[in-house]
Amino acid sequence: MSGMPRIAVIGAGAFGTALAAVIAQTGKAQALLIGRDPSVMADLQSDRVHESALPGIQLPPSLGFSARAEDLNESDIVLFAMPSQAQIAAAQTYGPHLKAGVPVVICAKGIEKQTSRLLTDVLETALPGHPIAMLSGPGFAADIAKGLPTAMAIAAQELMLAEHLAKVISGQTFRLYASDDRIGVQLGGALKNVLAIACGIVEGMGLGDSARAALIARGLAEMSRLVDAMGGRGDTVRGLSGLGDLVLTATSHQSRNLRFGIALGRGEPIAAQHGSLVEGAFAAAVSARLAEGHQIEMPITQAVAAIIDGRLDIPTAITQLMSRPITTE
Amino acid sequence: MSGMPRIAVIGAGAFGTALAAVIAQTGKAQALLIGRDPSVMADLQSDRVHESALPGIQLPPSLGFSARAEDLNESDIVLFAMPSQAQIAAAQTYGPHLKAGVPVVICAKGIEKQTSRLLTDVLETALPGHPIAMLSGPGFAADIAKGLPTAMAIAAQELMLAEHLAKVISGQTFRLYASDDRIGVQLGGALKNVLAIACGIVEGMGLGDSARAALIARGLAEMSRLVDAMGGRGDTVRGLSGLGDLVLTATSHQSRNLRFGIALGRGEPIAAQHGSLVEGAFAAAVSARLAEGHQIEMPITQAVAAIIDGRLDIPTAITQLMSRPITTE
Repeated sequence: MSGMPRIAVIGAGAFGTALAAVIAQTGKAQALLIGRDPSVMADLQSDRVHESALPGIQLPPSLGFSARAEDLNESDIVLFAMPSQAQIAAAQTYGPHLKAGVPVVICAKGIEKQTSRLLTDVLETALPGHPIAMLSGPGFAADIAKGLPTAMAIAAQELMLAEHLAKVISGQTFRLYASDDRIGVQLGGALKNVLAIACGIVEGMGLGDSARAALIARGLAEMSRLVDAMGGRGDTVRGLSGLGDLVLTATSHQSRNLRFGIALGRGEPIAAQHGSLVEGAFAAAVSARLAEGHQIEMPITQAVAAIIDGRLDIPTAITQLMSRPITTE
Repeated sequence: MSGMPRIAVIGAGAFGTALAAVIAQTGKAQALLIGRDPSVMADLQSDRVHESALPGIQLPPSLGFSARAEDLNESDIVLFAMPSQAQIAAAQTYGPHLKAGVPVVICAKGIEKQTSRLLTDVLETALPGHPIAMLSGPGFAADIAKGLPTAMAIAAQELMLAEHLAKVISGQTFRLYASDDRIGVQLGGALKNVLAIACGIVEGMGLGDSARAALIARGLAEMSRLVDAMGGRGDTVRGLSGLGDLVLTATSHQSRNLRFGIALGRGEPIAAQHGSLVEGAFAAAVSARLAEGHQIEMPITQAVAAIIDGRLDIPTAITQLMSRPITTE
C-alpha cells in the first residue's frame, strides 16, 4: 500500500465523489475524498453511498473520507473538484495544507467570474509552487461513478506531467488523454456552454436537426479561432474538451445552458430564466469581448451575447448569421 | 433571366429535389431538376410537390423539371445528386450531354464500392475536362427543402471554383462553405458512417451519453489522422462534413448506420441486419485497410470492422479500447 501514490479529491459533490470512486477503483492509488461537512463525510464513510449526489451507487471500500484539510498533507496529487467560482476560496482554505510542489488538478469548467481570468491563471497565483493542471471533457458524474466507459482530457504546462497524471488517474473505465494545451482544454470546457445555449435556441425555435449540426460545426470553428488567438491550439477544442463535451451537453437535456437556450428560442422572457446564473451566458459575454480584443470573428458567440443582453432579437440574429459573406470552412 | 447561371440537379430523390428547390428559391440561378422517369418528372412539373420524397413541401414555381439528358446542354453547373453507387452510371449517361468544361458537383457520400476509390477520382476519370467538386455535410433533405437554416461544405481542387460554387448555390437558408480539401470533405462524409455504427453499438449496449461523446471526439481524431495520411487536411473532418454530419447522424434515429450499430450493441445477429447493405460497414472495412496501408492507428474504426467481420466480440473490443496505452490527445 505504501508505494501507491496518494490522490486526494476535494469537493464531495457528484463529480468529486465520482472521480474519487473511480480512482480508488483502479487499485493503483490510495484515494481520499475531502468535503467540508464533517457529518456528511462521516455518513459517507459508514454508508459508502452518496444518496443526494450519486443515488444507489456503491462507493469502493478502499476509498477514504475526511473533512479535515490537514489530511491533505500526505497527498501526492490533489484534485480540486468544486465549482469554478469556489476554486479561489478552496485554494485559500486548502493551500496551506498541501505538500510542497504537489500538482493541483482543476476539475471545473468556466472562466473565473470576478476577474474574467482563466482558472489556471487564478490558481497559479493563489498556489505558488504548485503546477496547475486542468481536467475537462465529456463525463457525467453518474456515468463515471457507475464504471461506464468515459474519457476526458488532462492538460498541464509540461506534457510529461500531464502524461504522468493521466497514467496514475486512468483506470479500466475512466480514461484520460494528456495535453500540454491548458488554454485550449479550459476554453473548450467554458465555451461549449455558449454553444449549448445556441443549440437550445435552435431547438426552442424548431429549426431542425440540420441547423443544430451546422451550428455545432461552425461554433467549434470560431471557438478554435479564439483559442489560437489566446496562445492555445485551436485543434484542442475539437477534441474531448470542447467538441466531446458539447456533444454531451447538446444532446442530453440535463444541461441548464441548453434549457436556458430552449426557453430563449421559445420566446420566454429572459429574466424569468435567471440568465445571469447560467454559466454559458457569462462565458458568452466574456468571449465576445475577448473576440473583439483579439479582432477575430465569432459570429455565433457574439449573437448569443447580444441576444442575452437584449441587443438583438433571435430572428434578426439568424438572418444575419445566414447572410454573412460566403467564406471558406 | 438570361444572365442568370443555369444549374441542373440530376437525381430526383429527396436530396436532389431539395437542392434544386432551394437553388431555385434563391432567385439567383435558373434551376432544373433532371430525373430518369418521364412520368414522375411530368407529375412534378404539374403538381410541384414530390409526395414520395418530400411530402407536403411545395416546390418553387421557378424550378424546371425534365427527364431528358439533352436538356443539360445549357447548364453552367451540374450537381450529381444520386447515390454514390449510381454516380459512375450517371457519368456515362449524362456526360455526353454536358457543356465542355462545366463543373460537376458530387452530392453523395461514401467510397465507390467496386473500386474502393474516392468518388472524385472515379468521376474525374469518367468525365475528363470537367472540374469535379464535392458537396457534403449535415443536411436532411426535408430541412433543406423546408427552408430551415442549413450549412454544408463544398470542395473543389481550386479554392476559387469552390468559392464561386458556394456563392452561386447558397441562399438565405442554405449556406455553403468553400474548401479546397476534397479528400477531407469526402472522407468526412464517408467515415462518419463508421462512427455512426460505433455510436449505435454504445447506445445498444446502454453505455451512456458520456461514452458516446468520448467516442465521437476520439473517432474524429482518428478520422483526421487518415485524412492527413491521404493528403487532405485533418482539420476538415472536424468541420461541417465529418463532425457536423456525424452529430446529425448520431443524434437522430433516421440513420441506417446508427440503427445497425444499435442492433449490434443489443447482440442481434448481424446477418439479420443486412450489414453488407449499410454504407458504414463497407466504409469501416475500407478505412481499416487504408489505416493499415498508411500505418496509422484507427482503433475505433478497426474495432468496428472486426466486429462486423465477426473477428471480435463487442465486450472484448471495449476492453481493448479502454486499455490501450495512455496517450496524448
